[in-house]
Parts: sequence; structure tokens; C-alpha cells
Amino acid sequence: MATNSAGLRPGTTVEELCGLSAAEAARRIADGTVTAQEMVSACLARIREREPEVQAWEYLDEDYALGQARRLDDWRAAGHEIGPLHGVPVAVKDIIDTRDMPTCNGTPLHEGRRTRSDAAIVAQLRQAGAVILGKTVTAELAVYAPGKTRNPHDPGRTPGGSSSGSAAAVAAGMVPLAVGTQTAGSIIRPASYCGVFGFKPTHGAISRTGVLTQAPPLDTVGPFARTVEDLALLTDAMSAYDEKDPDMRPHSRGSLRRTATSTPAAQPVIAFVKTPVWEEHAEPATKEAYAELTEALAEQCDTVDLPDVFQRAWAWQRMLQMAGVAKNYGPLVDRAPEQASEIMRELIAEGREVTAVDYNTALEMRQVLNAGLDEIFKRYDAILTPATPGPAPKGLESTGSPVFNALWTYCGVPCVNLPLLDVDGMPLGVQLVGRRQDDGRLLRTANWLVQHLAALAEG
Amino acid sequence: MATNSAGLRPGTTVEELCGLSAAEAARRIADGTVTAQEMVSACLARIREREPEVQAWEYLDEDYALGQARRLDDWRAAGHEIGPLHGVPVAVKDIIDTRDMPTCNGTPLHEGRRTRSDAAIVAQLRQAGAVILGKTVTAELAVYAPGKTRNPHDPGRTPGGSSSGSAAAVAAGMVPLAVGTQTAGSIIRPASYCGVFGFKPTHGAISRTGVLTQAPPLDTVGPFARTVEDLALLTDAMSAYDEKDPDMRPHSRGSLRRTATSTPAAQPVIAFVKTPVWEEHAEPATKEAYAELTEALAEQCDTVDLPDVFQRAWAWQRMLQMAGVAKNYGPLVDRAPEQASEIMRELIAEGREVTAVDYNTALEMRQVLNAGLDEIFKRYDAILTPATPGPAPKGLESTGSPVFNALWTYCGVPCVNLPLLDVDGMPLGVQLVGRRQDDGRLLRTANWLVQHLAALAEG
Repeated sequence: MATNSAGLRPGTTVEELCGLSAAEAARRIADGTVTAQEMVSACLARIREREPEVQAWEYLDEDYALGQARRLDDWRAAGHEIGPLHGVPVAVKDIIDTRDMPTCNGTPLHEGRRTRSDAAIVAQLRQAGAVILGKTVTAELAVYAPGKTRNPHDPGRTPGGSSSGSAAAVAAGMVPLAVGTQTAGSIIRPASYCGVFGFKPTHGAISRTGVLTQAPPLDTVGPFARTVEDLALLTDAMSAYDEKDPDMRPHSRGSLRRTATSTPAAQPVIAFVKTPVWEEHAEPATKEAYAELTEALAEQCDTVDLPDVFQRAWAWQRMLQMAGVAKNYGPLVDRAPEQASEIMRELIAEGREVTAVDYNTALEMRQVLNAGLDEIFKRYDAILTPATPGPAPKGLESTGSPVFNALWTYCGVPCVNLPLLDVDGMPLGVQLVGRRQDDGRLLRTANWLVQHLAALAEG
Repeated sequence: MATNSAGLRPGTTVEELCGLSAAEAARRIADGTVTAQEMVSACLARIREREPEVQAWEYLDEDYALGQARRLDDWRAAGHEIGPLHGVPVAVKDIIDTRDMPTCNGTPLHEGRRTRSDAAIVAQLRQAGAVILGKTVTAELAVYAPGKTRNPHDPGRTPGGSSSGSAAAVAAGMVPLAVGTQTAGSIIRPASYCGVFGFKPTHGAISRTGVLTQAPPLDTVGPFARTVEDLALLTDAMSAYDEKDPDMRPHSRGSLRRTATSTPAAQPVIAFVKTPVWEEHAEPATKEAYAELTEALAEQCDTVDLPDVFQRAWAWQRMLQMAGVAKNYGPLVDRAPEQASEIMRELIAEGREVTAVDYNTALEMRQVLNAGLDEIFKRYDAILTPATPGPAPKGLESTGSPVFNALWTYCGVPCVNLPLLDVDGMPLGVQLVGRRQDDGRLLRTANWLVQHLAALAEG
């Protein structure tokens, strides 16, 4: 087959292929109108163009990526059955182990680190036919200190973190799908700042075997994409039960994609929850945008207040996270403290002070808060709440604040970022939150909201 | 039916009925040669005789117990299907909730405490047809400070604890079966001191919903009985999966009783493990008894040493236990410190000092130690190790030392006490330890050991 300089057949453009959703790309690869090699070539062309500015990648070997695509094309050409992501490029946050690429966890302490095994989810992605395109930049040990990545909408601003490269790569059109993780706000925040869809499933829905351990009661793997359907597609491909992850439970889940793309039986109703941090932390533009949004939703949306006990969730989330940081990173950083950031050393010191009693109280109180949320979800399909205080802050010295994420991560509930708002040309996400284990209903409601608002905008 | 003063038909004696194993009693009740009322009457007669000295019961209502038995007899007489424990009296440690009897947790802070629900295991026992005879004495909050119970073999000695009444009631012939719990050594120790069979199953094998929470990574429910088969029978009746207990996993278990009473395919081989506390803590008589025992077992037994890392297990078990004591009992005791023992207040203070990092390290290291034990269990059917430093110490001011139990409880492995030794007329138990989730193989090996030693003794 004749190809042009970008490795595409004549008449096919990088623009076109990089604009495909993952579902559409998989469909075209399956029916033979696009090859995996063309998809990967288009992504690589876009990366060559945008990477100097965006800096989303920690590791990328073009030939190796093309080799994976070639093998997948050969496999399909030989008439074998193919998986749901056959030939679709996926970027993987560089805290997720890959046996064929280094995994450096965003710290010089793990420079050049290689593992013998794939993380369970990477093995699942390969089984689904995905091309593991490369490894994306993470904040230091998936906490705060930023990596090199810049916001694709404005290189003078942070892309958010810690899944900085995954969000930015999807936003820059470098790849249709990326995998990230969230312990405080590391999926929803960069998704909001970069203007992409991001999903933190229910805690325990996706295996973390082979993923850097920060704080097990919080750590959650999730996808970035450019449609709700693609979020579900990638989540489905990573949802196999793994008995090695003690927070997973073997139970039937069904297809998230089918549920997410189905039509709700009734018009969803949404609870607008400002949370206790709204007054102090939501920026004026955010308050204004949410006032317009809730007004547009009219009778589909009520404002709901949380009980007082929810005010303590931020302290509990922080105790769980920092106790995990201290336990899991403390001994590593102690070996060469000068190779860690100052904030990392401070957080380790803070985490070492957390008592077991407080830690276990924090674990236990999740049940109490979820009982409160369950009451809301009896009457509402989802909670609407800010994803971030505002659009991406200027500067690269911070990844922004997870203050609108900590509560939900603490509760282990599923959260999705929808890139529906705009403040002075910068994206601002809308966060929807669902009931634990009701990930399908949350994504279905998210899909409805996207379409509903588009219909309203068209008048 | 004519009955004598003990409520038994002519020719049936208290001695005879109180000597039945639970399996035999259930068989006779099922075939109609004994009634549930007769079994309960015999137990009550024995209790009236022995209780003034032994003091095993915290709560016992004779009429209520007989009423349960009468209903069970009526049920059977009406031709309904009956459960595996139909009409068999079971004693329940007074930290296990019963909706029809108080549950006082061994503390004046919970005097007269009543609950609306049965513990999950009590509901299961009722479903199996058991008569919940009454509630047995526990040490204060299932920790150290002794209750009123005395050793049935010598009222001047402790019965051990914290499941003091459960062990003593079975030893005194008051009941064929009793339920206890272990967080350090609270089943195996009193079983050894009282000369009965006691079993701590694999952690997570039995639901703890409605059982006093002390330290969830350690808390384990288990049976006391007078045969290995009865241990399995009672465990089977309490093994239903309960999703409310986060340490339970839904998996097929099969009948422990069938496995326990089956003949091993090959002669079992036993690893004699002294553990790091042997030198300092095993009493001379114990050392002598184990020397004879291992000599008698000859080629069926090898001495095996544990890797050095096992020395730290005692500190880790203690951290997990005391952090749990502090979290779960601290707020209760703070309300009225004078109603708690001095040792309880000290342990709470100790537990409050445990850091989350140390706690989580202790949790994690269980996997490392179990990997070491798995290596032993590849070659050996069970570990043989002391149940207690010696026979029950004199005096009632302490329940004795759990030093030979803490390691195994920490690892979550199944342990069984076999009342096979005797030191100056006092019983001394033999502890067998099995691989996690291999409870059936452990009990089968235990059954073999009992029979093998009996055969050797007969020469």
C-alpha cells in the first residue's frame, strides 16, 4: 500500500485520523478501512508536531509502536478474532508497569526502572488489541511536584496533575485514549484543565497490580478520552477481576459501554452540590458558569446541601493519602532525600505523624459518608459539582488544587469530568459524581448531559 | 413421656447425654432416640451441678433454653426438615450479639446491653437448629482482664481467656459445643488450659457481623468442642458468606466435616516449629512433653526453623491489636475510665501511639510471612507447636500468656488445639497450624494425629 510521508494512504489525513474517537477508530480498523499502522502513524505525526511544546511523553519509541501496529495488522489479516481495542493507540501513565518500556514513576530515584511484568491492566489492554503507544509524564510519584508537561491550550499554564501527560496527550490529539490514576484529584483535575473527558471509576473497579502504590484506600485507575463512550470502552477493557488487588470484588459488571450509550428511561435529575469548599475555593468565573449551567438545566437540577459531617472528609482524605505517601515513599526517599522535592519530603513527614487510630477512623467514616450520599442517589441520578476551582492556573510550578476532588476520591464514588465549559478560552470541566458501583448509570447520565446541553445550545 | 427429675426419660443419665459428642447428639436427636429437650435438660443439670465452682455463664435462662428445645422437638415432630445441629445446645461467648439475650462484652460499660439483631453466626446457628443455650463469660472486652470463670480441672487456676466461659463450659461437660473468638490467643489458650478441642479457622472464614470488634485484621471466630469432627461440624454451620464482613471472600469451601473425618491419602508429615519464643517461654515440662511427642512421631515429624523475619511478628501482632483496642474501645472507656481495668487503660494508651505507617507495614508483612509458611506447607501437612507455655497457671488474676498464639493469629493461618498432653494432672494442649484456606487439611491432620497417638499409646 502506498503511503505518504506520515505513513498514511493517499487521501487520509493526520487531522482526520487524530480526530477519530477510539470507538470509531476501532470500528474502521475492524472493517479494514484504516490500519493500525495508519492510526499509529497519524498519532506519531501529531506527536512530532505538538510534543516540543506540550511535552506529554516520558517514553516513546516510534519504531516499537509501529512494530506493535504491524503485528496487529498481520494478526487481523490472518483472519484471527480481534479485541475491542484492536489497533487503537493508548497512552499509559508512567507509574503503570510495562515489561517492554521503562516505568520511572516521575522520580529520578527510579530512573531507568524496568519491570519483568506488565501491570494487570496493561496485559488486559494488550489482550484487547491496544497499541501501548508510550508512557506519559506524571507528577513526582503521582503526587504534587510537576513534571515537564504543559497545557496544550496554553503552554504557560499547568496541564494539572498528576496524570499530566495522559490528559495533555489526549487533549493535543496525540492519542485517542490514555490511562491515568487518581489518589486525590489526579484524573479529574487534569481532565478539567486540558478540556478532555476523564473518568475515575468506583474505587476497586480496576486492578492496581503493577501500578505504583501511593495510598491503597484511595488509589484508582481511570481513562482519559474525547467522548463518554470512549471512557466506557477503555474502562471495560481494564475491568477484569484480579484477585491480587485486595480492593477488587468478583462480581458481574456488564458492559459499561452499553449502559453508558443507552437512553435513560426517564429524563435524569441532577443534584447540584456545591460542597463545603465552594465559597472559599470556587473562582468567580466558576460560580458564574455553574449558575448559568444549573439555570439551563432548570427542573432537571436541584441544589442539595451535604450534611455537616462531610466537612471532615478533606482531613480524612489527607490522612489516608499522606499516611500512604509516608509508608510507600518514605523509605525510598530516605535513601536519597536530595532527589525528592521539598514538598515530597514535607508530605512524608506529615504522613508519619498520622496515628493508626485516626487512619482507621478515616477508613471507617467512608461508610457513614456513603450512606449520606446514597440518600441523595435515591432521588438523583448524579451529583453536579465543580471539577476544579477554575481553569488551569498560570505557571508550571504547581499542578493546581484537588480541593474539589478529595471528597469524592475519599468516598470511592465514580466521578467523570465533562469538558463543557470555557473561561476566557481555557477549558473548565463539569464534574458529575455517581453512586458507588453505579458507574454505568453515571456515564449514561453524563452522556445525556452532554447531549442535552448541546441540544439546548442549538436552541 | 415420663421423665425423671433432670427431665430425662427413665434409663437415660445426665452423664450419658453430657458425654455425647455434638455429632452423636445430633444423630440421636435426628433419629428420635433423644429429644432436644432431653439434651438441654441434661446440660442444665450438669450446669446446676458444676456452675457454682466453674462460673462459666454470663447469662443463662433455663426456661428459655428449654422453650427453644421444645419448639425444635415440635418442629421435628411435625415432619419438617431439620438442620445439622438440630437440638444441639451451643454456648456463645458474651461478645456475640443475640437478639433474645443480653450481650455485655465483659465490661460494666455495657451492662444490660441488648441488640435488636443476632450476629450473623447466631442466625446461622439457629438456622442449623442449634439451641443457643446461653452466653459465656469473656475477659473484659475480649482482651486481658479476667472474668469470674475458673478452670474446671482446678478452681484455683485460670481457665485462660478471653473465651474463658466457652472453653470451661465444654470442659465441664455443660455443653458439647461453644463459640469463642481469638485476636491474640483467646481460643487456643483457654482450650489448652481447659483440656478441650479449640479451633481458630483461617482469618476471614467466619463472619464477624454482630461480634464485638477489637482488631479486624486479627479478630477470628472459632469453635470449642470435644472432638475434631465437632469442631468441623460447628465451623461448617457458621461459614455462610457474609458480604458485610469485609474480610470474607465468596468462594466455595465444601464440607469441612467431610474433609476433617476423611483418611489422608498418605501418612501426614508434621513440621515441629519451636518458634523464637520457645527458649524463653516454654516451661520445662512443656519442653519435655514435646520432646517425647516428637520422638513418638519419629519419621512423621521433622524440626523446622523459621526465617529470622518471623521474630518481628510479635511486635506486629501487638501493634495491630493495640491500635484496634485504642480505636474501638478508647472512646467507650474515655466516657467512664474508672469502669475499665488498669490494663485496659494502659493498652488503649499504647495503641494510640501506633502510627499509621507502622500499622500498614504490619498489615503488609503478613504476606511476607505467609509466603515463608507456604514453603513449609509445601512439604508438611501441618506445623506442630506449643499451644501455651505450660498448663494453666495458678491464680485467677491473669488469663495466661498468648505468646505461642500471637504469631499464628497475626498470619491469619488456621490453628487447632488438641488436648493430648497432661502435666501433673492439668491438661496441656498441642497446637497444630495449617496453611491459610487449608482448614480442612489441618483438621484432617489433627484427626489423624489424635488417632495415631492413641494407637501408639495402645502399643
